Amino acid sequence: MVTIKDIAEECNVSIATVSNVLNGKNKAGADTEQRIWDAVKKYGYKPSPIAKGLRSKRTGHIGIIAEDIAHFSVPPIVEAVMNNLEQAGFQTILKNLRLYSRWSDSWFQDESMVHSVADPAMDELRNMMVDGIIYIAVHSREVHIFPESFDIPVVMTYALEKNPIVPSIVPDDEDAGYQAYQYLIQKGHDRIGIISGKADNLHAILRMQGVRRAMEENGIPYEDALVRYGDWQIKQAYEVMAELADADVTAVFCMSDLMAVGAYQQIYTMGKYVGRDISVMGFDNNVFTDFFIPSLSTMELPLIEIGDRAASCILERIQGNEAVKQEQVIKVPCRLLARDSVVKRQDSRR
Amino acid sequence: MVTIKDIAEECNVSIATVSNVLNGKNKAGADTEQRIWDAVKKYGYKPSPIAKGLRSKRTGHIGIIAEDIAHFSVPPIVEAVMNNLEQAGFQTILKNLRLYSRWSDSWFQDESMVHSVADPAMDELRNMMVDGIIYIAVHSREVHIFPESFDIPVVMTYALEKNPIVPSIVPDDEDAGYQAYQYLIQKGHDRIGIISGKADNLHAILRMQGVRRAMEENGIPYEDALVRYGDWQIKQAYEVMAELADADVTAVFCMSDLMAVGAYQQIYTMGKYVGRDISVMGFDNNVFTDFFIPSLSTMELPLIEIGDRAASCILERIQGNEAVKQEQVIKVPCRLLARDSVVKRQDSRR
Repeated sequence: MVTIKDIAEECNVSIATVSNVLNGKNKAGADTEQRIWDAVKKYGYKPSPIAKGLRSKRTGHIGIIAEDIAHFSVPPIVEAVMNNLEQAGFQTILKNLRLYSRWSDSWFQDESMVHSVADPAMDELRNMMVDGIIYIAVHSREVHIFPESFDIPVVMTYALEKNPIVPSIVPDDEDAGYQAYQYLIQKGHDRIGIISGKADNLHAILRMQGVRRAMEENGIPYEDALVRYGDWQIKQAYEVMAELADADVTAVFCMSDLMAVGAYQQIYTMGKYVGRDISVMGFDNNVFTDFFIPSLSTMELPLIEIGDRAASCILERIQGNEAVKQEQVIKVPCRLLARDSVVKRQDSRR
Repeated sequence: MVTIKDIAEECNVSIATVSNVLNGKNKAGADTEQRIWDAVKKYGYKPSPIAKGLRSKRTGHIGIIAEDIAHFSVPPIVEAVMNNLEQAGFQTILKNLRLYSRWSDSWFQDESMVHSVADPAMDELRNMMVDGIIYIAVHSREVHIFPESFDIPVVMTYALEKNPIVPSIVPDDEDAGYQAYQYLIQKGHDRIGIISGKADNLHAILRMQGVRRAMEENGIPYEDALVRYGDWQIKQAYEVMAELADADVTAVFCMSDLMAVGAYQQIYTMGKYVGRDISVMGFDNNVFTDFFIPSLSTMELPLIEIGDRAASCILERIQGNEAVKQEQVIKVPCRLLARDSVVKRQDSRR
């Protein structure tokens, strides 16, 4: 029996494109449309009545596409999404793109690599006739994953989808940068070093914007010597922490917990103590950070809430609630966890 | 249109049971069989020709059922399974049972709770006509997840399936306990404390068997005072570490990295130093353990290899290779990671 997949392969297009053409929604161009109808006639393809039946009503299945479930931020979002959808009576089907294990971080700058695995996953979920798709990115950036003609409800999480009909649910990085810096000021610090993530990374850019807003509000001038860039990992943070110590910082805000580990190691290497001599603020609330000595004050990513919001967003769209379509970018605040690595300056330098 | 699901609901049985009866493979009892045939006649149900077509050949899809993808041991197994199956030309469909987030650890002693979510997941995967299923447990125990009549290839990982036709792929806990204890002996320690996991846990039981084998081989008598039980978490390990220090241990083997954190905290609280005064060995190779001060020597779980073996096992079964069916339990060795928390005794007590 000829299937829609055979037609798609014959015409060298996606299953979604064939489906769109057969359903009169083609935006792929007249040429492609003609090729598809020719193949349908040639092979005598008939759309499955079951598929048509299911397409016209809900199947009760929602697809989840995760860029990599082995990345720490993904499982909590997946769990929250599944928990909510299950309570609403939906089943979920999870596709894992494995971007990191496939290509390390070489895919960051090349969206065509992402598409080469995301598009087949989308086609497959459509083929399973899901009622909607939630996409879980592993780091914040502008993406264009879903084509404009995509005809089932979709929600993007942890990245900003350029397609204007797709809502994006992201952590509020600007606010988090502001909160972290403001907290260090409240603790009496005025020479505060920053170990930023990579300069071209959207998380880092937005957090730095928040830092600068806090600086302005407190009349603190921006100083190049106090801002260093890391690569989110330990080693480079260890190196630049030495430079920040030379610049006589009393506190440092690291934009990842791993970079805070690098800061800790440098501070101990210098024979100083984290907290007492130099306060350290991390970001992510990674596992084990509450067992550091001293326990790491950090910003918690709102992963569960992002999953909750994604679930309610897709359900509203499936149920045809137009109201939600107004809000295209939903920013969820991060939460400051005050532990022992940030010490009040009056206390620390008596 | 009446579907197999409607028949299953009408008869209050699983989709798999209906499918078995319709395919002449019923082992559910004559009563159930009669009820199913009655319902089929009453509703005029006809098995989908597509489904029949696909069932008779391979669909190229393999199902993965994970007990909880948010548990640290699961994502690496999932990634390895997916990597291998993709290379072999198969697609995967992942179901996540969310056992921990659903019920914390109250499901450990009640397999019916597991079945209440695992059975629908299995039915659904069968309904999607997968060629096989890999089940990923989150902690080692004897389970009976797959019924004897299950008619597609299945593989169990990280737990021991009682169904004799299902192969189980597990870490070799006995050997790991032996390796860890043997290593501490080689480092000159003879008063070695043990912080075991829960006494009734299969991981803990097997690791303790390995410890006792190493004791016997080295002529070290078993001493009750040197063995304490924790609950895998930090706090209880912190408490019992004080008792082991009173028993004058020079090294301690903790059966989880979290319990090693408790040991570290107690050792530092007592004003002693990990390594120099008391060596500490962990288990799991959790993220961040290489950044502890000192870095934690630990046993690495062979998660990638378990995933690799599970993938090759299911592929061999799908391809009908009978040879593999001989080996029902495959034990994969753990790897000892020697870092800085275990110090040679001559060096440490000069």
